[in-house]
Amino acid sequence: MQVKVVKIGGGIIEDKQQLALFLASFAEIDGAKILVHGGGRLATKVAEDLGIKTNMIEGRRVTDDDMLKVVSMVYGGLTNKNIVAQLQKNNINALGLSGADGNLIKSHKRQHPTVDYGWVGDVDEVNTNLLETLLKSEIVPVLAPLTHDGNGNMLNTNADTIASEVAVALAKDGIETQLIFGFELNGVLKDFSDKSSVIPEITKGSYQNLKADGIISAGMIPKLDNAFSAVESGVESVNICHALKVGQAAQGNAGTNIVR
Amino acid sequence: MQVKVVKIGGGIIEDKQQLALFLASFAEIDGAKILVHGGGRLATKVAEDLGIKTNMIEGRRVTDDDMLKVVSMVYGGLTNKNIVAQLQKNNINALGLSGADGNLIKSHKRQHPTVDYGWVGDVDEVNTNLLETLLKSEIVPVLAPLTHDGNGNMLNTNADTIASEVAVALAKDGIETQLIFGFELNGVLKDFSDKSSVIPEITKGSYQNLKADGIISAGMIPKLDNAFSAVESGVESVNICHALKVGQAAQGNAGTNIVR
Repeated sequence: MQVKVVKIGGGIIEDKQQLALFLASFAEIDGAKILVHGGGRLATKVAEDLGIKTNMIEGRRVTDDDMLKVVSMVYGGLTNKNIVAQLQKNNINALGLSGADGNLIKSHKRQHPTVDYGWVGDVDEVNTNLLETLLKSEIVPVLAPLTHDGNGNMLNTNADTIASEVAVALAKDGIETQLIFGFELNGVLKDFSDKSSVIPEITKGSYQNLKADGIISAGMIPKLDNAFSAVESGVESVNICHALKVGQAAQGNAGTNIVR
Repeated sequence: MQVKVVKIGGGIIEDKQQLALFLASFAEIDGAKILVHGGGRLATKVAEDLGIKTNMIEGRRVTDDDMLKVVSMVYGGLTNKNIVAQLQKNNINALGLSGADGNLIKSHKRQHPTVDYGWVGDVDEVNTNLLETLLKSEIVPVLAPLTHDGNGNMLNTNADTIASEVAVALAKDGIETQLIFGFELNGVLKDFSDKSSVIPEITKGSYQNLKADGIISAGMIPKLDNAFSAVESGVESVNICHALKVGQAAQGNAGTNIVR
């Protein structure tokens, strides 16, 4: 079995028209696939409507009791079910899951020396058995960025991290796995002011040069470090591409390929 | 395979202590089981917090666009994931599903001559294949009262109805199915002022007599009609019991048994 793990941010899926375009591209991907989604913007909006303040530290949402309810509602309910219903409409047999469902992803509450992130989880374990059972039944798992600790608590977990952890876990089972990150740009750019200056392929060696030459922007470094960590852990390739080109990216025809 | 389908109302699961007691009783049920939950009270509260008015007609929630978002969030996200996480804590491998997930329950928007209920769905079809696959993997499906129409729309569907439809669909596949409705009373009562006056068994014949004698209260009639409809459609037995006694009820040792 070959599996493509596609991560998509909240911005695309919260816009009805963009979501339809994304789904058309996602539908192009043949064979077994998994979708991992974010939903942060909508969570912030719903929190605001409920009079709950959003507190972000270094891009991560501090998740107190009230915010945990919001992200459980938005990620697990509204966003996840909306995507699943739209995929079903497109004849893709999607099935939405949080990390608690079928004990899919176990995590522990983040320990940080100075910051209390609240109910934020760092992943310990992915139950690949369940994913493989679903994939063999031609079901497309749609993963919300929520995990659980096994003690009855849901935990808010970064969607990029979930996508990487799932891809790495499947690769460790000997499954050929490709990881695709859809975002708002066409790929890793040589020149940030030129949206079409996509670097088609980055290897470990060329990455060092690109960094030394100051071509890779600071914001891309964590994403690329994460990508290289995935390929070094057995994932076949990681692709960073425009969210509406995941179908082409799965064929290696769009975005930036990160390879060993 | 024998399957017990247990329906539980929102009141119990929204109270942390009651939920723990319910789970202890649910854990007593051996073998394959499915949990169907409500969540109306919490939906009303979240709607209120969002400044959205709840409009009920004959006990059914009118579901406009805003209310559909609320029930998707509350039923599909908050309530469903909370139950799943608690069951996981109790070593029950629960997996939450809406009717859109894996195309589990397809429905159509309710057509009513005078009332527009909005995004309320009446069930057309239950995908028992998916349930049977999960049950064979010793997974406990936890169903939120949400379905989909196959055209990308989620629909709000009564939890009692979902429980009955699922039980009937499994029975039609030749599976021995028991349906258990947990609620706030000990069963069908002979004397409403005496909470212990439970009628242990009602047959089609005794039901007519109980109704003729005015012993069955008006509020119980739709529940009992629904129960007889399920047993007539192949469900082995229906039990109406206290929500905290579903374990005993599964053995026939609590509540009221409705049999052919």
